[in-house]
Amino acid sequence: MSGAGRDALHEHTLESEPVFEGALLKVWRDRVELPDGSRSVREYIRHPGAVVVVALEESGALVFERQFRYPLQRAFLELPAGKIDAGEDILACARRELREETGFAAAHWEYVGVMHPCIGYSDERIEVFFAHGLSQAARALDEGEFLEVLSLRVDEVEQAIRAGRITDAKTITAYYLALPRIQGCLQGR
Amino acid sequence: MSGAGRDALHEHTLESEPVFEGALLKVWRDRVELPDGSRSVREYIRHPGAVVVVALEESGALVFERQFRYPLQRAFLELPAGKIDAGEDILACARRELREETGFAAAHWEYVGVMHPCIGYSDERIEVFFAHGLSQAARALDEGEFLEVLSLRVDEVEQAIRAGRITDAKTITAYYLALPRIQGCLQGR
Repeated sequence: MSGAGRDALHEHTLESEPVFEGALLKVWRDRVELPDGSRSVREYIRHPGAVVVVALEESGALVFERQFRYPLQRAFLELPAGKIDAGEDILACARRELREETGFAAAHWEYVGVMHPCIGYSDERIEVFFAHGLSQAARALDEGEFLEVLSLRVDEVEQAIRAGRITDAKTITAYYLALPRIQGCLQGR
Repeated sequence: MSGAGRDALHEHTLESEPVFEGALLKVWRDRVELPDGSRSVREYIRHPGAVVVVALEESGALVFERQFRYPLQRAFLELPAGKIDAGEDILACARRELREETGFAAAHWEYVGVMHPCIGYSDERIEVFFAHGLSQAARALDEGEFLEVLSLRVDEVEQAIRAGRITDAKTITAYYLALPRIQGCLQGR
């Protein structure tokens, strides 16, 4: 892998302006200079970032949710996730989202890594955590948030991915990133 | 997994309007009725869909690209991918993108499945293809498109994912979705 690519591929910002400020989405439009000196326009979402949690229950199952995702007009099977509040620590965010959405607290937390879900038109990053040693706490959904909590064994997750019943890329990515840790926990029992 | 969730979670559209039409991004804002009868607003990108190609070379390596992704201000290691043109067949799109971006044609194509990269605020789907039996054809990048083509062995891909040098979720997801087919091809040699 060549390290020389970064400079040769760089796009230089000439001008940057917000062009849409919605309740949820903020769109920016930048004028840029391309590597060959020509000019172009880039439009993209600025996003505060998010976390996703791979939470292993004592039974050996993972905590999943079913949530209606409006842009696609259907419910998705996905891992617990949520946006990072302004100034919020990412681990604090992961603890908060797991508790609010599923009612679980976890004794053990491990940072797994980061993914970028939508590099073509969003600066969103999603920080992945692995949680185990779960206990029931109080669930506290955000206003206007509706979801079902369910448990899927590792073999059920694999089957659901292979069969196309799980298609959410953050869930598939987080699952495979965390799989060595899941297997380590399951083998240690 | 309960099938009853779909109706219980459904959000009913009251009104739908385009609120931003950029050169690249189209944002819609809908007023919706939530499952409890309360009302809310959903903003989301309408996207034409995309393809991503896991292409296996005769050497046993996978075809990768390094491309500058402006929203994140850096180059990413990723699999060849691109947007579906209006009315374009998804396999035709996969063939076109592989050839235009990397210069490879492939004798064998297999459909792997679909992923959704950004279910919170985009209706984008990404169709995953596995290609093998590669031969060199003519590369023909779109105007204003700059990228480097490189080859990564399967063990190098795994290492790069574990080390955080590959963080693009479509690439990680497509790799794991296609992995049984990659292994089948490599074992058949």
